[in-house]
Amino acid sequence: MSTTTSTQIRLRERPVGEPTADTFETTTVDLPEPADGEVLLQIDHLSLDPYMRGRLSEAESYAEPLAVGDVVMGGTVGTVLASRHPDLAEGDQVLSYSGWQTHAVEPGRAVRKLDTGANPASTALGVLGMPGFTAYAGLLQIGRPQPGETVVVAAAMGPVGSAVGQIAKLKGARAVGIAGGPDKARALTEEMGFDVGLDHRADDFREQLASAVPDGIDVYFENVAGPVLDAVRRHLNLYARVPVCGLVANYNATAAPEGPDTLPGFLGQILTKSLTVRGFIQTEFVKDHYADFLAEMGQWVAQGKVRYREDVVEGLENAPEAFAGMLRGANTGKLLVKVS
Amino acid sequence: MSTTTSTQIRLRERPVGEPTADTFETTTVDLPEPADGEVLLQIDHLSLDPYMRGRLSEAESYAEPLAVGDVVMGGTVGTVLASRHPDLAEGDQVLSYSGWQTHAVEPGRAVRKLDTGANPASTALGVLGMPGFTAYAGLLQIGRPQPGETVVVAAAMGPVGSAVGQIAKLKGARAVGIAGGPDKARALTEEMGFDVGLDHRADDFREQLASAVPDGIDVYFENVAGPVLDAVRRHLNLYARVPVCGLVANYNATAAPEGPDTLPGFLGQILTKSLTVRGFIQTEFVKDHYADFLAEMGQWVAQGKVRYREDVVEGLENAPEAFAGMLRGANTGKLLVKVS
Repeated sequence: MSTTTSTQIRLRERPVGEPTADTFETTTVDLPEPADGEVLLQIDHLSLDPYMRGRLSEAESYAEPLAVGDVVMGGTVGTVLASRHPDLAEGDQVLSYSGWQTHAVEPGRAVRKLDTGANPASTALGVLGMPGFTAYAGLLQIGRPQPGETVVVAAAMGPVGSAVGQIAKLKGARAVGIAGGPDKARALTEEMGFDVGLDHRADDFREQLASAVPDGIDVYFENVAGPVLDAVRRHLNLYARVPVCGLVANYNATAAPEGPDTLPGFLGQILTKSLTVRGFIQTEFVKDHYADFLAEMGQWVAQGKVRYREDVVEGLENAPEAFAGMLRGANTGKLLVKVS
Repeated sequence: MSTTTSTQIRLRERPVGEPTADTFETTTVDLPEPADGEVLLQIDHLSLDPYMRGRLSEAESYAEPLAVGDVVMGGTVGTVLASRHPDLAEGDQVLSYSGWQTHAVEPGRAVRKLDTGANPASTALGVLGMPGFTAYAGLLQIGRPQPGETVVVAAAMGPVGSAVGQIAKLKGARAVGIAGGPDKARALTEEMGFDVGLDHRADDFREQLASAVPDGIDVYFENVAGPVLDAVRRHLNLYARVPVCGLVANYNATAAPEGPDTLPGFLGQILTKSLTVRGFIQTEFVKDHYADFLAEMGQWVAQGKVRYREDVVEGLENAPEAFAGMLRGANTGKLLVKVS
């Protein structure tokens, strides 16, 4: 077997605020041949996700930070080029966590062979992967929407948000999505089947929101924080549930924003409305709910009951710019890098 | 039966910020004779509780505001002077919600006859009443302390806080109490059996707190908000629970305090630590848990396993000043007014 070369993007220095050109560097390495039990992979798609911003910092997060000099982490789907693992064969499509690189050698136990009969392999990074499961588990285990209730989700054209709204609809709730810009807002109703799609950049966003939730809000699936939360929280009903899944508006912040201090007001609301505000990471629910998710959501996607959009950037070299753009809300749908 | 006169304290004008001498006025009325099904009560003790501050304002709260001109509301224990209800007899000790007055005529169904065999009647306003049930339900249903976990409660010498710590101990958890002033802090360990009692006014409070929770905090029972919350929340463990029961530090506030805005930081913690922050009012749990509470807590109190302290102010005319003092943290234990 000839030597395989992997082009890799590594963390050069920790970003302060928004990631810049200095944050990353590109290296090329010769990969070893796979040892017994290992496979050689060609990476086809790399997933870019907001959680990665936290891993680039030393600040305390729910996961260990990436070390400076490491290949940037990330979920990937790829093709087995060579296998020394009994359950995997050349040509298999697999899910792995190989990160920002073109090729990788992985232990066979660290990759999952994908069933690409019903749905394309790339869905394992989005609607049928971590973002989809985040939506499924957070909405159903924490949000617990009841038929007739109103569910609001922000970043609603993102891979988590669009799944949240569609699952809410399948469970009999009303789905109101909030996104950045009129095109995304329109896609929420036209493409994703939400009852209402709102553009939080509209001048009259607060009025539009008030009209969209005449019975108040029972579940607010929190993806963004910032001004959207400030508008939404005024409509939360008694006993409303707020799964806190992400806070992308705050991820690049380097210090607490200027006042006034809105925490006392929010706590007052938590008290007077008996709210449940619950942070979560999807890993908490994997053991009890992942198999159900793959079965139920896989069927919904195959039947077209849950739709998804992919935003595919060509070439690993464009991953850093695409990643920074995602944190600004520049993309629509699941952001993937087509690596090879 | 001769006419009975009731001296009453009414809401004269809504307070802006701290209640003042102008907030209340005293009136005297002749009570009608009890009609069929009613009882005439002499009020023995009036309960003063932080929630009343919210009811004096028009601002949205979990209960309807008091109307200007109404007798101020409040839980009371009293003695039946005359009864036209079959289940109540002259001399019975009863719990009612007669408010700030010396006598009242009440429908028999609005009063509960007290069993004063094991515990004194006044406990029905404190450790065996609303504050005790608030502690019991909030800690056990939301906080769910496990043996060996660390429970922190502020306003810990108050009637809710002292019960929270003692119930936590009975459930096998470690109890750390926070109170205002060295005397209260000492009483937490010496009188209430907490593992640690801290004075949040001490210069080195943050250091003392850090030493007191070497394994972090699993349950923070929130009674006060403000700087205490700011210190405590830095120690919350993964999956910690924060029952939000009261926010006395904020009750007199008339506007959001100056920045920086600490809400984004708190939300970030909720996310990275998978926290559950849950507001509640004890009424939510009455149906399912009140009978258990009366049985279990009544036994604990009778056996001396849960202790309580009463701070008794003599004379209804002193209720307004005692109420304002309570909001400043001036009292220790359950604040009662001895009415007659």
